[in-house]
Formats: sequence, structure tokens, C-alpha cells
Amino acid sequence: MQLRIPGPTPLPDEVLEAMGRPMITHRGGEFHETMRDVTERLQTCFQTEGDVLVFPGAGTGGLEAAIANLFSAGDKVISLSVGSFGERFAEIAERFGGELVRVEGPWGQPVDTEQLREALERHDTAVGVLMTHNETSTGVQNDVEKASQIIRKYGEKGGNRPLLVVDAISSLGAVDIPVDKWEIDVIVTASQKAWMAAPGLTMLSVSERAWEANAKARLPRFYWDFGEAKKYLRKWETPYTPAVSLLYGLQASLRLITAEGLPQVFARHERLRDMVREGARRVGFGMFAADEVASRTVTALVPPDGWSGKEVVKAMRERGIIIAGGQGEYEEKIVRIGHMGFAREVDMVEVLGVLGEVVGSR
Amino acid sequence: MQLRIPGPTPLPDEVLEAMGRPMITHRGGEFHETMRDVTERLQTCFQTEGDVLVFPGAGTGGLEAAIANLFSAGDKVISLSVGSFGERFAEIAERFGGELVRVEGPWGQPVDTEQLREALERHDTAVGVLMTHNETSTGVQNDVEKASQIIRKYGEKGGNRPLLVVDAISSLGAVDIPVDKWEIDVIVTASQKAWMAAPGLTMLSVSERAWEANAKARLPRFYWDFGEAKKYLRKWETPYTPAVSLLYGLQASLRLITAEGLPQVFARHERLRDMVREGARRVGFGMFAADEVASRTVTALVPPDGWSGKEVVKAMRERGIIIAGGQGEYEEKIVRIGHMGFAREVDMVEVLGVLGEVVGSR
Repeated sequence: MQLRIPGPTPLPDEVLEAMGRPMITHRGGEFHETMRDVTERLQTCFQTEGDVLVFPGAGTGGLEAAIANLFSAGDKVISLSVGSFGERFAEIAERFGGELVRVEGPWGQPVDTEQLREALERHDTAVGVLMTHNETSTGVQNDVEKASQIIRKYGEKGGNRPLLVVDAISSLGAVDIPVDKWEIDVIVTASQKAWMAAPGLTMLSVSERAWEANAKARLPRFYWDFGEAKKYLRKWETPYTPAVSLLYGLQASLRLITAEGLPQVFARHERLRDMVREGARRVGFGMFAADEVASRTVTALVPPDGWSGKEVVKAMRERGIIIAGGQGEYEEKIVRIGHMGFAREVDMVEVLGVLGEVVGSR
Repeated sequence: MQLRIPGPTPLPDEVLEAMGRPMITHRGGEFHETMRDVTERLQTCFQTEGDVLVFPGAGTGGLEAAIANLFSAGDKVISLSVGSFGERFAEIAERFGGELVRVEGPWGQPVDTEQLREALERHDTAVGVLMTHNETSTGVQNDVEKASQIIRKYGEKGGNRPLLVVDAISSLGAVDIPVDKWEIDVIVTASQKAWMAAPGLTMLSVSERAWEANAKARLPRFYWDFGEAKKYLRKWETPYTPAVSLLYGLQASLRLITAEGLPQVFARHERLRDMVREGARRVGFGMFAADEVASRTVTALVPPDGWSGKEVVKAMRERGIIIAGGQGEYEEKIVRIGHMGFAREVDMVEVLGVLGEVVGSR
């Protein structure tokens, strides 16, 4: 079986072995050293000198953590959504009492950053912008760099500069996202995506501006409290029991990423994306997203005439390749192939070969 | 090294091996079967026919989940606290806007349930009672059955019956807690304690009355939302990516627990407790908690004259046994030995032998 959904990804042997190590105390030197190593390697991959925090939880928990730590009930927040994960981020903010300004675009298209410019002008009291870097439901990469520039310029012209909060759950670690350079205030990712570790950890960065907002934010929080996490991290500990085995696994995968080199990892993901798109086109699939905005970690394909997404997923599974269908109203209309983290050219050769076999079988 | 802190515990080989299995999709049949098996085995161990939900997160997350799902801001909640985890539970409720009635007793003593009776009379509008079954910081087991009776009787006399919400993070699975019989509305536990699995999962039950409260509770929630979790569980899935490897590990440990038999597991923990207390007394340690209220999973010892807790912990570590010190103002005054989950008589023989060696060395 080859697992090619947009996360969880297959796990390298080194990660599986690390997770099988005997349990240790989370209040001792061996754990401290693990936590220090993981944190520092994450800072390198996030391209930040700011704080990086790790919580036991799914990526959705990281999104909730960002909301609970940065805002207060009634805060106006602009959400940029072109898919189900953009919607999820907005919904979390709304459930926590945010006053949402929803900037929505069609699925399969990227966020229109011009609309962000207009939203800022129209809603000068907005204190946050929520953006999905890599929309996993549609295979679209949004232009976070451009959004960041618009927000900065708006602030420089005297406007009220909101925080930029980014969901990069399914792209950070695979795609070049210089967090400090792009002045991203909080960016959220999760272990089971580009990090090729097991699910159950969410990792996020906190900028200086985010810490200032955190000091004033009144939303209730305990489990996800950034301040407590930072306080304990000074001694390389956590406020409550950390997911030790998962951290061991993440440490092993971070070592693999470091050994390969970040520029090489980023280039590999671009190659995999191009390879999947070219190969799938060749056997008759359409592309749900345009080439210029195509995700580097997940590709959404429109099956050839006569095939539903579900049929393709089923036929692939029968041949040993697990891919994903669409979400929401695209459940039947597209299929999605993950090519993030532990994914090589040779894996894609197999996936594409089987994809061709499947649609050639009728 | 022998790990004998009050969790995480050592992991059986079966659990380590299960965590090292290749990753699978969380939207397919193999995962569904795992989730079904884990859920049903948990229901057996919880002694409930009600719902049991599993979230990726630490036990503290389970406590936060209980608060966020049962209450609204301004709700009056009675907390019964005799240690640092009782305090933590109250603090979570307070951070989320609860109006706390704090019933506190001295550390090392159990909750005085008579005080609960009085608190109910005095605060008829209270909608919840928060109670710690096993206070890990002091090695005391509280009488949840008695508290449950008091609450039920109060309701039968026409009083406003609050929900009984129990933190049994460090005891459920090792101690006989019939959740349905005792009419516990939500009980919270965590994988790294009596369940002898890796940290990173919190498991909790939800009674019918808890579901009714959930429908009216207005506190913000998304990640911990009970309703969403239950909805997905109908098809043995989860609302967001579950911690697959940890669930594999938990499944393996639940199989071990089932194979041993719950009555046998409960009896073993009683034997271990008695053995540790007798053995530690023999080499000069005092008991922080009285025999009648002593925890079955963690024993807090008062070192002999001339020894600080820290010195005992350090000397034990030098001889290969990891135990824990005290918490809060008892940091230096007590040591704590975990004997939960993957713990046998032979392990305690070693621990007690080394404990005797240590204090006999001066």
C-alpha cells in the first residue's frame, strides 16, 4: 500500500523507530535535550528567530490556539477563504466570538489579494487577518507574501495594522515560507504533513507583535496558553505532559529534513508537483487549480469524462494506492494526491503509472 | 532505568511495536476498525454504556474539554480541591468564566464530602461539581462514590442537581470506578497513566445529563466539541486528523488490560500500593496520606529525617530508578512513586530495594 493522501503521510523508518523508544520522564535532562533540539530545528525550518511552540494536538488545535491567544470576543477579524480549511479557520474564530469579515472566493481559485486591500480600507478596526497558505481541499497555494505586503503598506499609510495569522498546516516544511521576512505573526502547522511525522503535534510560531496582542487578548484559554508554554520552554519543559513519543518521531524527521537541506526539500516538492501535474494530464486528468497557483504538496485532479472521483479513489485503492477524494460539493468531482514530506520521484512514478492504468482500464 | 513517576509509565513492548506500525489513512476501513475497537474497550473499562470520546491532547485538554462543553460563562461551579490537580481543574473553569465556589482542604487529606453537602445547600444555583478522583500531587484518593450520593440525594430532595465532573486522569483503568453506577457525568483520563500507553490522548465519557447540558452550554469550543466528535464517531472517524500511532498503542495496551481482566488489574494495583507502603515504611519513610485514603496508583512518601525529597530523587536516579518529587510547597518535602499501568510486583521489589539502599547509605 502506498499512502498518498494530503496527510498523514508515510513515515520514514527512522521516525517509526524513534517512536518505539522506551518512555522517559518529561521532567528530566533527556527530555530537555529533545525539546531543545526539536524547537531549534523548527525555528530553522520556520525561518524565524521568534518563538516556536509545540502542543499535543491536531493542526485544528493550533488554529484554535492562535484565535484564543490573539483575540477577544467581539474583535473584528478578516478571513480569506477559498476552500474548506479557510472556512474552518473562520468558523473557529466565529465560535470564539469574533466578528468575522468573510472574504470568500471560488474553490479552485486563489485568494484575490485585491479584496484584502479593499477589506482593510472598509474595516479599519480589524485586528486580524486569517489566511490559509495551502488550501488542502483544492490544491491551491495562496500568496501570503503579497497579503503581508498589503497589510504592511496599509499600516505604513496610517491604517490600523492587523495581525497576519496563517494556516500553513499542509505546506510549512515543504515550501519556502520565510516567516520573519514575511512578518507572519502566527503560523500554524502539524506533524503529519510536510514534517513526515505521526499526527498528534501542532507547531506554531509567535512574533513580537503577536506577544503584544496576546498580553491584551481576553479569550479564555488554558490548554493552548502561549504564555504558559513559553514560560515552561525556558527550561525546555511543557506545562503538562507532552507527547514524548511523537516528539521523538518529529526529532527524527527534522534530522532527515536538515540532512537533506531546506533548499533541496523545497525544490523536491516543486519537482513532485510538476511531475504529478504533467503525468496526470498525460493520462487525461484535468487540473482543478491553475499552474501558477498550484500547491506544492497536494494536487487536485479532475477525472476524465465518465469517471467520478469516488470511482478513481476506489480503483486506485484496489491497486494499492491510497489517494483522497474531494471535500464538500467537490467530494465526487475531484481526487487529491498528496506529495508532501516523505515523497520521492520514484513514488510518484508508481502513483502516476497506476493512475494511467486505472483510467486506461475502461 | 526504571521509570516510576506518576505517569508517563513504562510502555509494554506490544505498545511500542504497535506505535511503530506504518501510517494509514484516517478515512478508511482499517482506521474505522481501530477506532471502534478502542472505543468499545474503553467503554468496558469505564464501565459505561454511554459515549466515550478520544481527543488528541494531554489530560489537561480533557479537563478543558469538559468545562467548555458543559458550561456557560457565569455558571456557578463547585470545585473540591486538596492538591495541585484539584487547583488546576478549578483554574481552568475560572479562566473560562466560571463563578467558582472553591471547597479546599489541606494537601495530603481527602476531600471532606461533608463540605460538599454544605456547599450544595449554600449554592443551590451551582450547575457543576468538579472533583479529582486521584490527586496525583499528594497520593490521595477521593471518595467520588460518596460525593455522587450526596449530589443525587440533594437532587432528590428537590435541590438543583449539578453535574458531577471527575478528573480520574491518573486512576481510571487501574481503579474500580463504575462510571454509570456512580452517575458520573463526565470522567476524564489520559493515555500515559494507568492505560500504559504513550502520552498524547485524552479519553472521556459523556452521560445523558451531560449531553443535555452540552446542548445549552455556551462556552466557545471547536477543537474539543463533544457534539462534533460524536457525530464523526458514528462512522468511527474524528472531526480532524486523529493521532493514529498513539491510538494503535492504546489499542495494544487495552488488549493487555482486557486479557489480564479488569478485576485482576484493580487487585494488582491495590497489592502494589500496599506493598510500596509497607516496604517504604520498613526503611524509614513516612506516609503523606493515611492508609484509608491512599491512592492505588501513586504513593507520596515523607523521607526519613536528614533527607530532602530532592536528595532522595537524585540518589534514586543515580541508581537507575526515576521517581518524582513533590509539587508546590511540598516540592522538597515528599517524593512520589508511580505504580500504575505497566507495573508489577517484581518492579516494586527493585524500587523498594533501591529505596532502602539509598537511605541506608548515610
